[in-house]
Amino acid sequence: MRAMVTGASGFVGPYLVKELQENGISSTVLDAAIDITNFDAVKGAVDDFATRTKEAKVIFHLAALSHVGTSWNDPLAYLNVNVGGTLNLLRSVESVDRDIKIVYVSSSEVYGNQSHLDSIDEATSPRPLSPYASSKAAAETYVLQYGRAFGLNCVIARPFNHIGPNQSANFLVSAVAKRICEARLKGEDEILVGNLGATRDFLDVRDVVRAYRLIAVGETSFDTYNISSGIGKRIDEVVQMLIEIDGGMVKTKTDPSLMRPVEVMRIVGDSARIRSELGFEPSYTLETTLREVISYWREDLGFS
Amino acid sequence: MRAMVTGASGFVGPYLVKELQENGISSTVLDAAIDITNFDAVKGAVDDFATRTKEAKVIFHLAALSHVGTSWNDPLAYLNVNVGGTLNLLRSVESVDRDIKIVYVSSSEVYGNQSHLDSIDEATSPRPLSPYASSKAAAETYVLQYGRAFGLNCVIARPFNHIGPNQSANFLVSAVAKRICEARLKGEDEILVGNLGATRDFLDVRDVVRAYRLIAVGETSFDTYNISSGIGKRIDEVVQMLIEIDGGMVKTKTDPSLMRPVEVMRIVGDSARIRSELGFEPSYTLETTLREVISYWREDLGFS
Repeated sequence: MRAMVTGASGFVGPYLVKELQENGISSTVLDAAIDITNFDAVKGAVDDFATRTKEAKVIFHLAALSHVGTSWNDPLAYLNVNVGGTLNLLRSVESVDRDIKIVYVSSSEVYGNQSHLDSIDEATSPRPLSPYASSKAAAETYVLQYGRAFGLNCVIARPFNHIGPNQSANFLVSAVAKRICEARLKGEDEILVGNLGATRDFLDVRDVVRAYRLIAVGETSFDTYNISSGIGKRIDEVVQMLIEIDGGMVKTKTDPSLMRPVEVMRIVGDSARIRSELGFEPSYTLETTLREVISYWREDLGFS
Repeated sequence: MRAMVTGASGFVGPYLVKELQENGISSTVLDAAIDITNFDAVKGAVDDFATRTKEAKVIFHLAALSHVGTSWNDPLAYLNVNVGGTLNLLRSVESVDRDIKIVYVSSSEVYGNQSHLDSIDEATSPRPLSPYASSKAAAETYVLQYGRAFGLNCVIARPFNHIGPNQSANFLVSAVAKRICEARLKGEDEILVGNLGATRDFLDVRDVVRAYRLIAVGETSFDTYNISSGIGKRIDEVVQMLIEIDGGMVKTKTDPSLMRPVEVMRIVGDSARIRSELGFEPSYTLETTLREVISYWREDLGFS
């Protein structure tokens, strides 16, 4: 099998390329040098990829704008990149080679507020709350529609919150870890945080990309798979874990400017489907991942 | 109440403006002179509309590219106009006046192939088959998401096939009526047709716009309403009715070039919701409408 990975220069892309490589699958990467909103550019890249090998082929479509908060400022950009880019990819595969499997990386954000549910399975109707979430749900609609219309082999992955070293400080766990390390560097004893009362389902990014690989190589009988730990963790617990890993020196202080316009209290994913059908099992404990995130920021900030 | 109608220069827009006028609701029209894909232009128009009156306000969002077949050639244009345009409208209402009611005109096409169902109610999960249908389903996603996030009063109308005088010959019933009239004019005894075996649910456009008005003025307790006759008619029956209305002189001949890439065998809508909650009842018989469609084309083609 040979893979193409779009969005290869993001947080998740390099982890996925490494995961594939370690399992004997070489990848063609499509990074920011190719404009995903330009149909001819995307089609050219898919064409190159398709003609390069006679092996079975899969495209992991990760290229996306991915920040919930920012999507409120420019929802049209999220529409163009996340939906338009996906549409360009689908049309390219449809016209170049309909046997290429497509793993579309969506997001648990599509579910929106399902706080009444203990955990969310794939049959739960999406109720997006942000323009980011709408863009992912809309892209899913196109993925399934092109799949139906042309018999394409499309699978949707809905990862829940994924964390790990090298994640941008635009995302909560990475941001808090960075602030903890900065506070220590500056000798401060306080960090600013947003709403911490919510419950989320955290997975190490390396577990997430393993799930993507399993979806690509496995015999998938569903069109959509949750990728989650199945464990709900309150964000303030995670923040306390980060502080303790760092040495327990700082306290948190709430900053209203860090609050999101719409907050979902509880998001926990039911991943029974991928566990039973594809044998997925997370291998990183939350503590291990958080230690590595702290180490990452220490190194990035030039600690000893 | 005061109304704004986008897409006022299309087939349905003028009928809606007339329906509103006859019921004491004056309309601001937004026609093709305003580029619906330009956020500033749309926001300016909504701003003008909102400041013009203190009355309750409603926007009927009809502006869209609406041809299923054409959407395969340029799906990105359908995305930009139908989803991007809707997003521009939602953002405008959100920033200008959150009390404006929005009636989003979607389409029964979002349901896709549900041929196993005798009739389709609003709880049926959409399964779009064409880029047009995906664009309407994606726009619905944004409508509901902005509604949830800001408490906007948004309602989705899903009209089934609507017909009537003045409809473009890009649509089946109008196209066949035109061909029948042309054949008579040229003294030919044959017209070309596409797949006629499918069953559809036809409503007169004037019944459809009455339903839109009822949704706007009524107390709506659901977010989505089918607008349909509830009666399944085979297209070949409708074609025979048109031929008989014209005088029964022509025969049909199948033309493969008129076949669509994807064909749904049966689409019949269950409109119990709008009937029971808002008292909707179609008032035009199919025969009445078809007679007017034939008359329209006779006049258009310069018959006596």
